[in-house]
Amino acid sequence: MSADRYEFAVALAKKAGELGVSYFRRLETLTVTSKGHQDMVSEADRDVETLVRDELAKVFPDDGILGEEHGRIAGTSGYTWVIDPIDGTANFVAGIPQWCVIIACVYQGETVIGVIHDPVAGETFHALRGKGAFLGDRPISVSDSDSLSRGSLGVGFNGRTKPADVVECVSQLLAAGGVFFRNASGGLMLAYTAAGRLIGYIEPHMNAWDCLAGLLMIEEAGGKVEPFDVDKSLDVGTRIVCGGPGIYDAAKTIADSSFS
Amino acid sequence: MSADRYEFAVALAKKAGELGVSYFRRLETLTVTSKGHQDMVSEADRDVETLVRDELAKVFPDDGILGEEHGRIAGTSGYTWVIDPIDGTANFVAGIPQWCVIIACVYQGETVIGVIHDPVAGETFHALRGKGAFLGDRPISVSDSDSLSRGSLGVGFNGRTKPADVVECVSQLLAAGGVFFRNASGGLMLAYTAAGRLIGYIEPHMNAWDCLAGLLMIEEAGGKVEPFDVDKSLDVGTRIVCGGPGIYDAAKTIADSSFS
Repeated sequence: MSADRYEFAVALAKKAGELGVSYFRRLETLTVTSKGHQDMVSEADRDVETLVRDELAKVFPDDGILGEEHGRIAGTSGYTWVIDPIDGTANFVAGIPQWCVIIACVYQGETVIGVIHDPVAGETFHALRGKGAFLGDRPISVSDSDSLSRGSLGVGFNGRTKPADVVECVSQLLAAGGVFFRNASGGLMLAYTAAGRLIGYIEPHMNAWDCLAGLLMIEEAGGKVEPFDVDKSLDVGTRIVCGGPGIYDAAKTIADSSFS
Repeated sequence: MSADRYEFAVALAKKAGELGVSYFRRLETLTVTSKGHQDMVSEADRDVETLVRDELAKVFPDDGILGEEHGRIAGTSGYTWVIDPIDGTANFVAGIPQWCVIIACVYQGETVIGVIHDPVAGETFHALRGKGAFLGDRPISVSDSDSLSRGSLGVGFNGRTKPADVVECVSQLLAAGGVFFRNASGGLMLAYTAAGRLIGYIEPHMNAWDCLAGLLMIEEAGGKVEPFDVDKSLDVGTRIVCGGPGIYDAAKTIADSSFS
Protein backbone atom coordinates (compact mmCIF):
# COMPACT_ATOMS: atom_id res chain seq x y z
CA MET A 1 0.00 0.00 0.00
CA SER A 2 1.14 3.51 -0.77
CA ALA A 3 0.39 4.83 2.73
CA ASP A 4 2.85 2.42 4.44
CA ARG A 5 5.50 3.26 1.91
CA TYR A 6 4.86 6.99 2.40
CA GLU A 7 5.59 7.02 6.11
CA PHE A 8 8.64 4.84 5.53
CA ALA A 9 9.93 7.10 2.74
CA VAL A 10 9.71 10.25 4.87
CA ALA A 11 11.70 8.63 7.68
CA LEU A 12 14.19 7.17 5.20
CA ALA A 13 14.84 10.54 3.53
CA LYS A 14 15.68 12.00 6.95
CA LYS A 15 18.03 9.13 7.73
CA ALA A 16 19.71 9.53 4.33
CA GLY A 17 20.00 13.27 4.97
CA GLU A 18 21.90 12.61 8.19
CA LEU A 19 24.44 10.52 6.31
CA GLY A 20 24.69 13.18 3.61
CA VAL A 21 25.27 15.90 6.20
CA SER A 22 28.06 13.91 7.84
CA TYR A 23 29.90 13.95 4.51
CA PHE A 24 28.99 17.60 3.90
CA ARG A 25 30.49 18.70 7.23
CA ARG A 26 33.70 16.80 6.50
CA LEU A 27 33.89 18.35 3.03
CA GLU A 28 33.77 21.83 4.53
CA THR A 29 37.14 21.30 6.13
CA LEU A 30 38.78 20.40 2.81
CA THR A 31 40.05 22.65 0.05
CA VAL A 32 37.32 23.09 -2.51
CA THR A 33 39.17 22.01 -5.64
CA SER A 34 41.26 19.14 -4.30
CA LYS A 35 40.97 15.78 -5.99
CA GLY A 36 40.15 14.11 -2.68
CA HIS A 37 37.18 16.41 -2.35
CA GLN A 38 35.66 15.32 -5.64
CA ASP A 39 36.20 11.71 -4.71
CA MET A 40 34.47 12.22 -1.41
CA VAL A 41 31.44 13.75 -3.10
CA SER A 42 31.11 10.74 -5.38
CA GLU A 43 31.51 8.52 -2.34
CA ALA A 44 28.81 10.47 -0.47
CA ASP A 45 26.44 10.17 -3.43
CA ARG A 46 26.99 6.43 -3.72
CA ASP A 47 26.85 5.73 0.02
CA VAL A 48 23.63 7.67 0.54
CA GLU A 49 22.00 5.85 -2.37
CA THR A 50 23.22 2.51 -1.06
CA LEU A 51 21.73 3.26 2.35
CA VAL A 52 18.37 4.11 0.76
CA ARG A 53 18.45 1.04 -1.50
CA ASP A 54 19.38 -1.31 1.34
CA GLU A 55 16.61 -0.05 3.60
CA LEU A 56 14.04 -0.27 0.82
CA ALA A 57 15.15 -3.77 -0.19
CA LYS A 58 14.81 -4.96 3.42
CA VAL A 59 11.26 -3.71 3.90
CA PHE A 60 9.88 -3.83 0.35
CA PRO A 61 11.95 -6.56 -1.34
CA ASP A 62 9.56 -6.89 -4.29
CA ASP A 63 9.70 -3.22 -5.29
CA GLY A 64 11.79 -1.93 -8.19
CA ILE A 65 14.43 0.74 -7.60
CA LEU A 66 15.87 3.36 -9.95
CA GLY A 67 18.62 5.62 -8.64
CA GLU A 68 20.92 8.19 -10.17
CA GLU A 69 24.08 6.42 -9.04
CA HIS A 70 23.42 2.68 -9.27
CA GLY A 71 20.98 2.24 -12.16
CA ARG A 72 17.74 0.25 -12.17
CA ILE A 73 16.54 -2.94 -10.50
CA ALA A 74 13.22 -4.33 -11.72
CA GLY A 75 10.58 -5.37 -9.15
CA THR A 76 7.46 -7.51 -9.13
CA SER A 77 5.12 -5.52 -6.83
CA GLY A 78 4.36 -2.81 -9.37
CA TYR A 79 6.00 -0.16 -7.18
CA THR A 80 9.20 1.49 -8.37
CA TRP A 81 11.26 3.73 -6.10
CA VAL A 82 13.09 6.59 -7.78
CA ILE A 83 15.99 8.08 -5.84
CA ASP A 84 18.34 11.03 -6.09
CA PRO A 85 20.61 10.62 -3.08
CA ILE A 86 22.08 14.16 -3.32
CA ASP A 87 20.33 16.65 -5.59
CA GLY A 88 22.36 19.81 -6.10
CA THR A 89 25.70 18.04 -6.27
CA ALA A 90 27.45 21.16 -7.57
CA ASN A 91 26.36 22.98 -4.41
CA PHE A 92 27.32 20.03 -2.24
CA VAL A 93 30.81 19.84 -3.74
CA ALA A 94 31.28 23.61 -3.38
CA GLY A 95 30.08 23.64 0.23
CA ILE A 96 26.87 25.57 -0.50
CA PRO A 97 24.23 24.34 1.97
CA GLN A 98 21.45 24.04 -0.62
CA TRP A 99 20.98 20.43 -1.63
CA CYS A 100 18.49 17.70 -0.80
CA VAL A 101 17.65 14.00 -0.73
CA ILE A 102 14.83 13.02 -3.09
CA ILE A 103 12.72 9.88 -2.88
CA ALA A 104 9.73 9.20 -5.12
CA CYS A 105 7.62 6.11 -5.69
CA VAL A 106 5.79 5.25 -8.92
CA TYR A 107 2.82 2.85 -9.20
CA GLN A 108 0.83 2.07 -12.33
CA GLY A 109 2.19 4.97 -14.31
CA GLU A 110 1.70 7.57 -11.60
CA THR A 111 3.96 9.05 -8.98
CA VAL A 112 2.24 8.21 -5.71
CA ILE A 113 4.83 9.37 -3.15
CA GLY A 114 7.27 12.28 -3.17
CA VAL A 115 9.73 13.31 -0.47
CA ILE A 116 12.30 16.13 -0.68
CA HIS A 117 14.42 16.55 2.42
CA ASP A 118 16.80 19.46 3.04
CA PRO A 119 18.83 18.35 6.04
CA VAL A 120 20.74 21.62 6.50
CA ALA A 121 17.66 23.83 6.77
CA GLY A 122 15.81 20.97 8.47
CA GLU A 123 12.91 21.02 6.01
CA THR A 124 11.06 17.92 4.81
CA PHE A 125 8.55 18.39 1.98
CA HIS A 126 6.33 15.42 1.22
CA ALA A 127 3.19 14.33 -0.59
CA LEU A 128 1.03 11.23 -1.01
CA ARG A 129 -1.19 11.22 -4.10
CA GLY A 130 -4.69 12.36 -3.22
CA LYS A 131 -3.72 13.37 0.31
CA GLY A 132 -2.14 16.82 -0.16
CA ALA A 133 1.38 18.16 0.21
CA PHE A 134 3.16 19.09 3.42
CA LEU A 135 6.22 20.76 4.85
CA GLY A 136 6.75 18.83 8.06
CA ASP A 137 3.26 18.68 9.57
CA ARG A 138 1.94 21.77 7.82
CA PRO A 139 -0.08 21.62 4.57
CA ILE A 140 1.46 23.68 1.78
CA SER A 141 -0.04 25.25 -1.30
CA VAL A 142 1.31 26.81 -4.47
CA SER A 143 1.48 30.55 -5.04
CA ASP A 144 -1.69 32.42 -5.96
CA SER A 145 0.30 34.90 -8.06
CA ASP A 146 -1.45 35.80 -11.28
CA SER A 147 1.51 37.39 -13.04
CA LEU A 148 5.16 36.58 -13.74
CA SER A 149 5.90 40.03 -12.33
CA ARG A 150 4.65 38.94 -8.90
CA GLY A 151 7.18 36.50 -7.42
CA SER A 152 10.25 34.64 -8.66
CA LEU A 153 10.30 31.90 -11.27
CA GLY A 154 12.82 29.10 -10.83
CA VAL A 155 14.84 28.45 -13.97
CA GLY A 156 16.92 25.33 -14.35
CA PHE A 157 19.48 24.21 -16.83
CA ASN A 158 22.49 21.94 -16.97
CA GLY A 159 25.33 20.87 -19.22
CA ARG A 160 22.88 19.39 -21.73
CA THR A 161 21.01 22.69 -22.19
CA LYS A 162 21.78 24.91 -25.19
CA PRO A 163 23.04 28.30 -23.96
CA ALA A 164 20.81 30.09 -26.49
CA ASP A 165 17.73 28.47 -24.88
CA VAL A 166 18.69 29.77 -21.45
CA VAL A 167 19.38 33.26 -22.76
CA GLU A 168 16.06 33.40 -24.62
CA CYS A 169 14.22 32.13 -21.57
CA VAL A 170 15.79 34.69 -19.23
CA SER A 171 15.19 37.43 -21.79
CA GLN A 172 11.49 36.65 -22.08
CA LEU A 173 11.04 36.33 -18.34
CA LEU A 174 12.63 39.71 -17.69
CA ALA A 175 10.63 41.27 -20.53
CA ALA A 176 7.50 40.06 -18.72
CA GLY A 177 8.65 41.95 -15.62
CA GLY A 178 9.72 38.75 -13.87
CA VAL A 179 12.86 37.65 -12.04
CA PHE A 180 14.59 34.29 -12.07
CA PHE A 181 15.91 32.24 -9.18
CA ARG A 182 18.51 29.52 -9.64
CA ASN A 183 20.03 27.97 -6.55
CA ALA A 184 21.29 24.96 -8.52
CA SER A 185 19.12 22.34 -6.82
CA GLY A 186 16.18 21.49 -9.07
CA GLY A 187 14.66 19.37 -6.31
CA LEU A 188 14.64 22.25 -3.84
CA MET A 189 13.25 24.65 -6.44
CA LEU A 190 10.36 22.25 -7.15
CA ALA A 191 9.70 21.92 -3.42
CA TYR A 192 9.78 25.71 -3.10
CA THR A 193 7.24 25.90 -5.94
CA ALA A 194 4.94 23.47 -4.11
CA ALA A 195 5.24 25.64 -1.00
CA GLY A 196 4.45 28.85 -2.90
CA ARG A 197 7.95 30.25 -2.32
CA LEU A 198 8.58 30.33 -6.07
CA ILE A 199 5.64 30.97 -8.38
CA GLY A 200 6.77 28.20 -10.73
CA TYR A 201 9.67 26.36 -12.29
CA ILE A 202 10.78 25.60 -15.84
CA GLU A 203 13.68 23.51 -17.16
CA PRO A 204 14.28 22.06 -20.65
CA HIS A 205 15.04 18.59 -19.25
CA MET A 206 15.16 16.84 -15.89
CA ASN A 207 15.75 13.21 -15.04
CA ALA A 208 13.02 11.26 -13.26
CA TRP A 209 14.93 11.09 -9.97
CA ASP A 210 15.23 14.90 -9.95
CA CYS A 211 11.64 15.79 -10.72
CA LEU A 212 9.00 13.13 -9.91
CA ALA A 213 8.76 13.85 -6.18
CA GLY A 214 8.53 17.60 -6.68
CA LEU A 215 5.98 17.41 -9.47
CA LEU A 216 3.66 15.26 -7.35
CA MET A 217 3.98 17.78 -4.53
CA ILE A 218 3.12 20.66 -6.82
CA GLU A 219 -0.02 18.88 -8.05
CA GLU A 220 -1.02 17.98 -4.51
CA ALA A 221 -0.41 21.59 -3.48
CA GLY A 222 -2.90 22.82 -6.06
CA GLY A 223 -0.47 23.62 -8.86
CA LYS A 224 -0.37 22.74 -12.54
CA VAL A 225 2.22 20.44 -14.11
CA GLU A 226 2.73 19.93 -17.83
CA PRO A 227 1.45 16.41 -18.61
CA PHE A 228 4.12 13.79 -19.31
CA ASP A 229 4.48 10.00 -19.46
CA VAL A 230 5.79 8.96 -16.04
CA ASP A 231 6.89 5.46 -17.08
CA LYS A 232 8.74 6.83 -20.08
CA SER A 233 10.36 9.53 -17.92
CA LEU A 234 12.09 6.79 -15.91
CA ASP A 235 14.18 6.12 -19.00
CA VAL A 236 14.49 9.47 -20.70
CA GLY A 237 13.41 12.21 -18.27
CA THR A 238 11.05 14.99 -19.28
CA ARG A 239 10.67 18.71 -19.89
CA ILE A 240 9.42 20.67 -16.88
CA VAL A 241 6.80 23.39 -16.77
CA CYS A 242 4.93 23.82 -13.48
CA GLY A 243 3.64 26.38 -11.05
CA GLY A 244 0.65 28.07 -9.56
CA PRO A 245 -2.47 28.00 -11.76
CA GLY A 246 -2.32 31.78 -12.19
CA ILE A 247 1.08 31.81 -13.90
CA TYR A 248 1.23 28.33 -15.47
CA ASP A 249 0.13 29.42 -18.95
CA ALA A 250 2.59 32.32 -19.02
CA ALA A 251 5.42 30.02 -17.89
CA LYS A 252 4.48 27.49 -20.57
CA THR A 253 4.53 30.20 -23.25
CA ILE A 254 8.10 31.06 -22.28
CA ALA A 255 9.14 27.40 -22.28
CA ASP A 256 7.45 26.76 -25.65
CA SER A 257 9.16 29.66 -27.34
CA SER A 258 12.61 29.40 -25.76
CA PHE A 259 13.36 25.69 -25.25
CA SER A 260 14.40 24.15 -28.56
CA MET B 1 40.03 49.90 18.11
CA SER B 2 38.85 47.72 15.27
CA ALA B 3 39.59 44.46 17.09
CA ASP B 4 37.15 45.21 19.96
CA ARG B 5 34.49 46.20 17.50
CA TYR B 6 35.12 43.03 15.47
CA GLU B 7 34.40 40.62 18.28
CA PHE B 8 31.36 42.66 19.27
CA ALA B 9 30.05 42.73 15.67
CA VAL B 10 30.27 38.95 15.27
CA ALA B 11 28.28 38.39 18.49
CA LEU B 12 25.80 41.09 17.54
CA ALA B 13 25.13 39.59 14.09
CA LYS B 14 24.30 36.28 15.78
CA LYS B 15 21.96 37.98 18.23
CA ALA B 16 20.27 39.86 15.37
CA GLY B 17 19.97 36.59 13.46
CA GLU B 18 18.08 35.01 16.35
CA LEU B 19 15.53 37.81 16.28
CA GLY B 20 15.27 37.53 12.49
CA VAL B 21 14.69 33.78 12.72
CA SER B 22 11.91 34.23 15.27
CA TYR B 23 10.05 36.35 12.69
CA PHE B 24 10.95 33.95 9.88
CA ARG B 25 9.47 30.96 11.73
CA ARG B 26 6.26 32.88 12.40
CA LEU B 27 6.05 33.92 8.74
CA GLU B 28 6.18 30.29 7.66
CA THR B 29 2.80 29.68 9.21
CA LEU B 30 1.16 32.51 7.25
CA THR B 31 -0.12 32.58 3.69
CA VAL B 32 2.61 33.88 1.43
CA THR B 33 0.75 36.72 -0.24
CA SER B 34 -1.34 38.04 2.61
CA LYS B 35 -1.02 41.71 3.48
CA GLY B 36 -0.18 40.87 7.07
CA HIS B 37 2.78 38.89 5.87
CA GLN B 38 4.31 41.83 4.03
CA ASP B 39 3.78 44.00 7.07
CA MET B 40 5.51 41.48 9.28
CA VAL B 41 8.54 41.39 6.99
CA SER B 42 8.85 45.16 7.18
CA GLU B 43 8.46 44.90 10.94
CA ALA B 44 11.15 42.22 11.11
CA ASP B 45 13.52 44.34 9.03
CA ARG B 46 12.97 47.39 11.22
CA ASP B 47 13.12 45.53 14.52
CA VAL B 48 16.34 43.71 13.68
CA GLU B 49 17.97 46.97 12.60
CA THR B 50 16.75 48.69 15.77
CA LEU B 51 18.26 45.93 17.89
CA VAL B 52 21.62 46.30 16.11
CA ARG B 53 21.54 50.10 16.35
CA ASP B 54 20.62 50.08 20.03
CA GLU B 55 23.40 47.66 20.97
CA LEU B 56 25.96 49.61 18.96
CA ALA B 57 24.85 52.94 20.45
CA LYS B 58 25.22 51.55 23.97
CA VAL B 59 28.76 50.25 23.53
CA PHE B 60 30.12 52.63 20.89
CA PRO B 61 28.06 55.80 21.36
CA ASP B 62 30.44 57.96 19.30
CA ASP B 63 30.28 55.79 16.16
CA GLY B 64 28.19 56.67 13.12
CA ILE B 65 25.54 54.25 11.86
CA LEU B 66 24.08 53.73 8.39
CA GLY B 67 21.33 51.17 7.95
CA GLU B 68 19.02 50.22 5.13
CA GLU B 69 15.88 50.83 7.15
CA HIS B 70 16.53 53.83 9.38
CA GLY B 71 18.99 56.04 7.45
CA ARG B 72 22.21 57.58 8.70
CA ILE B 73 23.44 58.93 12.02
CA ALA B 74 26.78 60.79 11.98
CA GLY B 75 29.40 59.90 14.59
CA THR B 76 32.54 61.53 16.00
CA SER B 77 34.87 58.53 16.46
CA GLY B 78 35.63 58.09 12.76
CA TYR B 79 33.98 54.65 12.75
CA THR B 80 30.76 54.17 10.79
CA TRP B 81 28.70 50.99 11.08
CA VAL B 82 26.86 49.88 7.96
CA ILE B 83 23.96 47.49 8.50
CA ASP B 84 21.60 45.40 6.41
CA PRO B 85 19.34 43.75 9.00
CA ILE B 86 17.87 41.22 6.53
CA ASP B 87 19.61 40.77 3.20
CA GLY B 88 17.57 38.66 0.78
CA THR B 89 14.23 40.14 1.79
CA ALA B 90 12.46 38.59 -1.20
CA ASN B 91 13.56 35.16 0.05
CA PHE B 92 12.60 36.03 3.62
CA VAL B 93 9.11 37.14 2.58
CA ALA B 94 8.64 34.01 0.46
CA GLY B 95 9.86 31.67 3.19
CA ILE B 96 13.06 30.66 1.38
CA PRO B 97 15.71 30.02 4.06
CA GLN B 98 18.47 31.91 2.25
CA TRP B 99 18.95 35.34 3.81
CA CYS B 100 21.45 36.89 6.19
CA VAL B 101 22.28 39.68 8.61
CA ILE B 102 25.12 41.95 7.42
CA ILE B 103 27.23 44.21 9.61
CA ALA B 104 30.22 46.18 8.31
CA CYS B 105 32.34 48.90 9.86
CA VAL B 106 34.16 51.63 7.92
CA TYR B 107 37.12 53.65 9.23
CA GLN B 108 39.14 56.25 7.33
CA GLY B 109 37.76 55.32 3.95
CA GLU B 110 38.24 51.56 4.35
CA THR B 111 35.97 48.75 5.41
CA VAL B 112 37.71 47.31 8.48
CA ILE B 113 35.12 44.77 9.69
CA GLY B 114 32.68 42.56 7.81
CA VAL B 115 30.21 40.03 9.23
CA ILE B 116 27.64 38.02 7.26
CA HIS B 117 25.53 35.70 9.37
CA ASP B 118 23.14 33.07 7.99
CA PRO B 119 21.13 31.99 11.01
CA VAL B 120 19.21 29.18 9.27
CA ALA B 121 22.30 27.33 8.04
CA GLY B 122 24.16 28.43 11.18
CA GLU B 123 27.05 29.98 9.25
CA THR B 124 28.89 33.14 10.30
CA PHE B 125 31.40 34.56 7.84
CA HIS B 126 33.62 37.36 9.16
CA ALA B 127 36.76 39.34 8.44
CA LEU B 128 38.92 41.97 10.12
CA ARG B 129 41.14 43.98 7.76
CA GLY B 130 44.63 42.54 7.67
CA LYS B 131 43.68 39.49 9.73
CA GLY B 132 42.09 37.16 7.16
CA ALA B 133 38.57 35.89 6.60
CA PHE B 134 36.79 33.11 8.47
CA LEU B 135 33.73 30.90 8.51
CA GLY B 136 33.22 30.33 12.21
CA ASP B 137 36.71 29.47 13.45
CA ARG B 138 38.02 28.24 10.12
CA PRO B 139 40.04 30.44 7.71
CA ILE B 140 38.48 30.66 4.24
CA SER B 141 39.98 31.43 0.87
CA VAL B 142 38.62 32.26 -2.55
CA SER B 143 38.42 29.78 -5.39
CA ASP B 144 41.58 28.94 -7.31
CA SER B 145 39.58 28.40 -10.50
CA ASP B 146 41.34 29.79 -13.56
CA SER B 147 38.34 29.68 -15.92
CA LEU B 148 34.70 30.75 -15.93
CA SER B 149 33.97 27.20 -17.07
CA ARG B 150 35.23 25.82 -13.73
CA GLY B 151 32.72 26.74 -11.03
CA SER B 152 29.65 28.97 -10.78
CA LEU B 153 29.58 32.75 -11.00
CA GLY B 154 27.08 34.62 -8.86
CA VAL B 155 25.04 37.13 -10.83
CA GLY B 156 22.97 39.76 -9.11
CA PHE B 157 20.39 42.22 -10.27
CA ASN B 158 17.39 44.06 -8.91
CA GLY B 159 14.54 46.31 -9.93
CA ARG B 160 16.97 49.07 -10.90
CA THR B 161 18.85 46.84 -13.38
CA LYS B 162 18.06 47.06 -17.10
CA PRO B 163 16.81 43.66 -18.34
CA ALA B 164 19.02 43.92 -21.43
CA ASP B 165 22.09 44.14 -19.19
CA VAL B 166 21.15 40.93 -17.39
CA VAL B 167 20.46 39.09 -20.63
CA GLU B 168 23.76 40.19 -22.17
CA CYS B 169 25.63 39.21 -19.01
CA VAL B 170 24.04 35.74 -18.87
CA SER B 171 24.63 35.29 -22.59
CA GLN B 172 28.33 36.07 -22.34
CA LEU B 173 28.81 33.91 -19.27
CA LEU B 174 27.21 30.89 -20.94
CA ALA B 175 29.19 31.53 -24.13
CA ALA B 176 32.33 31.29 -21.97
CA GLY B 177 31.19 27.87 -20.78
CA GLY B 178 30.13 29.17 -17.40
CA VAL B 179 27.00 28.83 -15.28
CA PHE B 180 25.26 31.43 -13.13
CA PHE B 181 23.97 31.15 -9.60
CA ARG B 182 21.37 33.51 -8.18
CA ASN B 183 19.88 32.73 -4.82
CA ALA B 184 18.61 36.29 -4.40
CA SER B 185 20.79 37.20 -1.41
CA GLY B 186 23.72 39.32 -2.60
CA GLY B 187 25.25 39.17 0.86
CA LEU B 188 25.29 35.36 0.91
CA MET B 189 26.65 35.20 -2.63
CA LEU B 190 29.55 37.49 -1.65
CA ALA B 191 30.22 35.35 1.43
CA TYR B 192 30.14 32.23 -0.77
CA THR B 193 32.66 33.92 -3.07
CA ALA B 194 34.98 34.60 -0.12
CA ALA B 195 34.68 30.94 0.88
CA GLY B 196 35.47 29.70 -2.65
CA ARG B 197 31.96 28.27 -3.09
CA LEU B 198 31.32 30.61 -6.01
CA ILE B 199 34.24 31.60 -8.21
CA GLY B 200 33.11 35.24 -8.22
CA TYR B 201 30.21 37.65 -8.22
CA ILE B 202 29.08 40.51 -10.44
CA GLU B 203 26.21 42.96 -10.11
CA PRO B 204 25.59 46.30 -11.82
CA HIS B 205 24.84 48.06 -8.53
CA MET B 206 24.73 47.25 -4.84
CA ASN B 207 24.16 49.48 -1.85
CA ALA B 208 26.91 49.83 0.75
CA TRP B 209 24.99 47.84 3.38
CA ASP B 210 24.68 44.91 0.97
CA CYS B 211 28.28 44.73 -0.21
CA LEU B 212 30.92 46.24 2.10
CA ALA B 213 31.16 43.29 4.49
CA GLY B 214 31.40 40.73 1.71
CA LEU B 215 33.94 42.69 -0.33
CA LEU B 216 36.27 42.98 2.68
CA MET B 217 35.96 39.23 3.23
CA ILE B 218 36.81 38.50 -0.38
CA GLU B 219 39.94 40.65 -0.20
CA GLU B 220 40.96 39.06 3.09
CA ALA B 221 40.35 35.62 1.56
CA GLY B 222 42.83 36.35 -1.23
CA GLY B 223 40.36 37.55 -3.87
CA LYS B 224 40.26 40.57 -6.11
CA VAL B 225 37.67 43.34 -5.84
CA GLU B 226 37.15 46.13 -8.36
CA PRO B 227 38.43 49.32 -6.68
CA PHE B 228 35.78 51.79 -5.53
CA ASP B 229 35.43 54.77 -3.20
CA VAL B 230 34.12 53.36 0.08
CA ASP B 231 33.03 56.72 1.55
CA LYS B 232 31.17 57.61 -1.62
CA SER B 233 29.56 54.15 -1.71
CA LEU B 234 27.84 54.95 1.61
CA ASP B 235 25.73 57.48 -0.31
CA VAL B 236 25.44 55.99 -3.78
CA GLY B 237 26.50 52.34 -3.67
CA THR B 238 28.85 50.85 -6.25
CA ARG B 239 29.20 48.40 -9.12
CA ILE B 240 30.47 44.96 -8.07
CA VAL B 241 33.08 42.80 -9.75
CA CYS B 242 34.96 40.37 -7.52
CA GLY B 243 36.24 36.85 -7.30
CA GLY B 244 39.24 34.59 -7.27
CA PRO B 245 42.36 36.06 -8.92
CA GLY B 246 42.19 33.43 -11.69
CA ILE B 247 38.79 34.53 -12.99
CA TYR B 248 38.64 38.20 -11.96
CA ASP B 249 39.73 39.59 -15.33
CA ALA B 250 37.26 37.42 -17.23
CA ALA B 251 34.44 38.44 -14.89
CA LYS B 252 35.37 42.12 -15.31
CA THR B 253 35.31 41.76 -19.10
CA ILE B 254 31.73 40.48 -18.89
CA ALA B 255 30.70 43.29 -16.54
CA ASP B 256 32.39 45.95 -18.72
CA SER B 257 30.67 44.80 -21.87
CA SER B 258 27.22 43.98 -20.48
CA PHE B 259 26.46 46.49 -17.69
CA SER B 260 25.43 49.82 -19.24
